[in-house]
Amino acid sequence: MAVPAVDARSIFPGSISALLDEVGRLFERQLASDMPSVNSLCRHVERYRGKMLRPTMVFLSGQAFGAVGERHVMVAATCEMIHMATLVHDDVLDEAQVRRRGQTINRLRGNEVAVMLGDYLISNAFHLCSRAGDPALNLRLGEVTNTLCEGELVQLSHREDLSLDEATYFEIVRRKTAVLIGACCELGARLSGAPEESVDALRRFGEGLGVAFQIQDDLLDLEGREDVVGKSLGRDLEKGKLTLPVIIHLASGTGARRERAISAIRARDGAALMGELVASGALSAARSRAESLVAEARRELRLVPAGEARDALDAAAIAVVQREF
Amino acid sequence: MAVPAVDARSIFPGSISALLDEVGRLFERQLASDMPSVNSLCRHVERYRGKMLRPTMVFLSGQAFGAVGERHVMVAATCEMIHMATLVHDDVLDEAQVRRRGQTINRLRGNEVAVMLGDYLISNAFHLCSRAGDPALNLRLGEVTNTLCEGELVQLSHREDLSLDEATYFEIVRRKTAVLIGACCELGARLSGAPEESVDALRRFGEGLGVAFQIQDDLLDLEGREDVVGKSLGRDLEKGKLTLPVIIHLASGTGARRERAISAIRARDGAALMGELVASGALSAARSRAESLVAEARRELRLVPAGEARDALDAAAIAVVQREF
Repeated sequence: MAVPAVDARSIFPGSISALLDEVGRLFERQLASDMPSVNSLCRHVERYRGKMLRPTMVFLSGQAFGAVGERHVMVAATCEMIHMATLVHDDVLDEAQVRRRGQTINRLRGNEVAVMLGDYLISNAFHLCSRAGDPALNLRLGEVTNTLCEGELVQLSHREDLSLDEATYFEIVRRKTAVLIGACCELGARLSGAPEESVDALRRFGEGLGVAFQIQDDLLDLEGREDVVGKSLGRDLEKGKLTLPVIIHLASGTGARRERAISAIRARDGAALMGELVASGALSAARSRAESLVAEARRELRLVPAGEARDALDAAAIAVVQREF
Repeated sequence: MAVPAVDARSIFPGSISALLDEVGRLFERQLASDMPSVNSLCRHVERYRGKMLRPTMVFLSGQAFGAVGERHVMVAATCEMIHMATLVHDDVLDEAQVRRRGQTINRLRGNEVAVMLGDYLISNAFHLCSRAGDPALNLRLGEVTNTLCEGELVQLSHREDLSLDEATYFEIVRRKTAVLIGACCELGARLSGAPEESVDALRRFGEGLGVAFQIQDDLLDLEGREDVVGKSLGRDLEKGKLTLPVIIHLASGTGARRERAISAIRARDGAALMGELVASGALSAARSRAESLVAEARRELRLVPAGEARDALDAAAIAVVQREF
């Protein structure tokens, strides 16, 4: 059964909603082009903006330590734009047809347009970030996107690799998903003058959350309903990406059980694979890993002053592993 | 008949060669990753470094006004990395098989790896640029790459568009090719303390050269020999890209001549199309346009102090329309 939508705007302090609207406006202004064909593509991609998890993390991490200002909005919009670029290119990589309940750019306009539109988003993200006039921000976010691309490249090099181990899986996920969320928390706090110890704690909080978020994505890709999740599912199996439940199963399963899972993977038989993962307990083991990561992340919040913002960060952490979309 | 290779190292002052070696080293250091699979891809892509036109423009434009230092090397390597990223993604868009006499990444490792590797190059270009610690550089190069992506997107929106006019063609080429070369000249001069008037003149010089460079690329794609040019040819026709000779022909040709060219385009018949373009004079008209652009660009050099560097810029301009690769 679908849970009601957990939207950042509903569980976070009132001011977050106004800040997220600011992000939306800055996002649109940044992408505005004098070429009409570019604008029509950007209007489509703006529909991808959904949970706004990354901007929310920037703002809450900032509010926990002081005032939140224009630079927070710029960093938040930059991080959301980086994220959007990865969605557009990921959909090319995954040959996905549906994103946020709409057709993907690659489906609508072809892979070539999707590749170039993703590039336009990356470029604009860096341009927007440069407008803040703080080289340290550019340097940090450049480092983050380098790491993110490395994660994607390493993941691609392990497609169809049935021997992929947990350590490599976690390294891939940390790079491709977690470092960006970690940087959102880190930069939000730093821009509000948080002490370095707390900045580090919030970065770890964000990274832990990010890994848990990705595991939850893995689970939804296996067991979610497309009409609830709102994007193409079953893509991991289809594209030969081993996810945590499968890795756990293959590492721990007995001979016959392991062989049946491998056959299901090779046959791209999602139902059979699910049956194996449920029976072996690998699915719930993966869910437990995500929950432990969230619990660990929440403990980092001890270095954050008590208050509304910290409570909201805490609530966001819990929501990550409870979401069904 | 193939002309002997016109390499930047042979026609430019001795010090350029040492500076280009610096660029190569910085390029490699920047892309070095702790993930071995990423490194092996980067080693392949480093083979794409060929004419080093963009770094050469940074250095010569700098040397014309004063000393050339570490920042020039950083900007030069950044621009070459941006260029490399566009090559990798262009090869995906064009389904090209050969680049600098080697196989393309998309051919060797698939489109997905090529998309992500291009992203890794873009990201590293911005990261490298940020290391210079000068927000104005980031802002300017972010602007340049925004424009570059717009040019590519507009070009894609005109694929198979037989009514593409010259004005739109020149706008596409200016954006996708010329602005980056213009920025190389502009930034090289500015970093050496050139007066703004000269900086603007060098930007215009670089942009004019860039447009001429692209027209020459169009001509080589039509009439070049793959073993001389060293990359896949005939891709423009294959991918429905109208280039200058074709646009001139379609705009000026009489009814029957126009119809024969359109049939050749629809049939992807390069030989028949070439026959029409030669007979109508459209091919030589396009060549004349490139030569006029170069002549106009060279006149901008009057705002550059006479000397070895200016002579080399002048020689580079001439080489752009004489090259056969």
